[in-house]
Amino acid sequence: MSPCFSFQKIDHFCQALLIASGVPETEAKIVASILVDTSLEGIDTHGISRLPVYLKCLLSGRINPAPSIQNTINGAVASVDGDNGLGQLVAYRAMEIAIELSQKYGIGFVTVRNSNHFGAASTYCKMAAEEQMIGQVFTNSPSGIPPWGGKAPYFGTNPIAYGFPNGNQPVVIDMSSSTVARGNIILAAKEERDIPEGWAIDKEGKPTTNAKAALEGAVLPIGGAKGYALALAVEVFSGIISGSAYGSHVGWINDDAVEPANIGHSFLTIDISRFMPIEEFTQRMKDMIREIKETPKADGISEIRIPGERRQIIAEKRRRDGIPISDGLLSELNKFAKKFKISML
Amino acid sequence: MSPCFSFQKIDHFCQALLIASGVPETEAKIVASILVDTSLEGIDTHGISRLPVYLKCLLSGRINPAPSIQNTINGAVASVDGDNGLGQLVAYRAMEIAIELSQKYGIGFVTVRNSNHFGAASTYCKMAAEEQMIGQVFTNSPSGIPPWGGKAPYFGTNPIAYGFPNGNQPVVIDMSSSTVARGNIILAAKEERDIPEGWAIDKEGKPTTNAKAALEGAVLPIGGAKGYALALAVEVFSGIISGSAYGSHVGWINDDAVEPANIGHSFLTIDISRFMPIEEFTQRMKDMIREIKETPKADGISEIRIPGERRQIIAEKRRRDGIPISDGLLSELNKFAKKFKISML
Repeated sequence: MSPCFSFQKIDHFCQALLIASGVPETEAKIVASILVDTSLEGIDTHGISRLPVYLKCLLSGRINPAPSIQNTINGAVASVDGDNGLGQLVAYRAMEIAIELSQKYGIGFVTVRNSNHFGAASTYCKMAAEEQMIGQVFTNSPSGIPPWGGKAPYFGTNPIAYGFPNGNQPVVIDMSSSTVARGNIILAAKEERDIPEGWAIDKEGKPTTNAKAALEGAVLPIGGAKGYALALAVEVFSGIISGSAYGSHVGWINDDAVEPANIGHSFLTIDISRFMPIEEFTQRMKDMIREIKETPKADGISEIRIPGERRQIIAEKRRRDGIPISDGLLSELNKFAKKFKISML
Repeated sequence: MSPCFSFQKIDHFCQALLIASGVPETEAKIVASILVDTSLEGIDTHGISRLPVYLKCLLSGRINPAPSIQNTINGAVASVDGDNGLGQLVAYRAMEIAIELSQKYGIGFVTVRNSNHFGAASTYCKMAAEEQMIGQVFTNSPSGIPPWGGKAPYFGTNPIAYGFPNGNQPVVIDMSSSTVARGNIILAAKEERDIPEGWAIDKEGKPTTNAKAALEGAVLPIGGAKGYALALAVEVFSGIISGSAYGSHVGWINDDAVEPANIGHSFLTIDISRFMPIEEFTQRMKDMIREIKETPKADGISEIRIPGERRQIIAEKRRRDGIPISDGLLSELNKFAKKFKISML
């Protein structure tokens, strides 16, 4: 059993670590809150577990702790230059702009270049859903999956994420275009666990269950050629049109290179009230969800889940009982705390 | 070998059949040209093969041959009421509006209710790409796939389609969120062919290779829970926000019911020139495509394909050699021609 800590305590700790690494206070609060919220929801691969690498990059200068984020608004669309800031911060700012554009025009679309790993795409979808808007978030990521027919990775595991308002708790979809998010393989490698068959191939193109070999090889796309096509679409929406790096040119902050990752994202928001009263939309969502849950179940299934539902259950539990932090992660984070002469977790 | 006919000849024939079924000439030309273009590209499941059912519905009044299509524009978004017209016509008009909105605001989003089966989503993506815009097209469709954990169909095979300008020939993605488009199973049932394992379950939830049993059962989503999530996202974008039918309420024009299908679609367009000169975008696309094609190939693969590439090759061949029409389809269409007293194909 990993030790658990209250989300408030972790939040303050993350803030302090970020501030000590040169991130201004307001921005540190935004980033810490996103990391903690992600871990609260049980997405351990994309939350606090990434902080040690971020801190390392902030200290080495590979990520800019105090970026001057620029945007160019042109009608209902905008492009953002993240100035190599933390992905969470840049993405948060870009989604704010998309929401403003939607309020004005009914829709907003914002592309981002010169950014970094932004954590879980669902974070920004939830921002849109809280404003009673549909959110669509795409990002590219370091090479992880091969084009269909290839054996070497080219595209990232390029996630596809949506947020749909639904009363109190939005419906949130957040999925990689690969059989599994690369974060799961990174975590398995860190914890020296094997990965299931069918997830990945090694660098020779052969199936593997060794997490480290998979990181040197490629993750397979979902549904074969279809997942490849989805990864390509996400790449155009986040990498090509934004002016960021794309395909195998996207940097990976876990390696020893020094160049910025130059990740690209895009954020789309749609103001539902331009189509129907939000209450009507929410009622239609609830009716659909009821019908989905009433579908006859396959053998052995006790309940049909709605995307994002499990995360909400975990978040409730962790808000109450605390967030488990593995011994390895705790020791890594506390090493930074010691170095910065701040209180350890 | 099925007999082949020139696309021009088929186009005139389709136009004549549609006009004889009450469709005004201008609209008949639009619909015929879409059907023929789809068959030219080898998408036989979504082109001319659908005409007999459309004609039957036009004659019975289940589809409105001369709809009064209404739109409400509100900023950069619009909603369209298709007045139960042919899906191809309604979708064409909606995409025209989306393109106009993009020209004005950089982005356009149009939802559609009271429509019908619109053929291949790629058709409308190509319209956007021809205007140097990104196109994203979603539609719902009659129940075909179960929610993950369910054994009865709820969502349609809800396709996801994108068009990206790329110089002369756009990159076009058009995929169902199921392992296979329902059209492939309809065609197999019509031709009394078996379907591969893994495509579908029968009405008891058991795997089947019988196409007719599969039509009574459900098609499986791609990547399990991920395909289910994609189908749900498409449903919100096309069914929920548009005010159309959704989920199992969407009608299926191949059955004997009389109610309109009330299908919903949505069309998103993005004006690339607001982000970078179109030449720069196209160059980035071409560079990415070159790199994809240069990826080391898996054993037995001679070439890595770009989505939509095979369609362009087939279209070139069929434009030259003609489009094959199966004996069954030919006889169905000629029966209508005889009834309408127009020249047979």
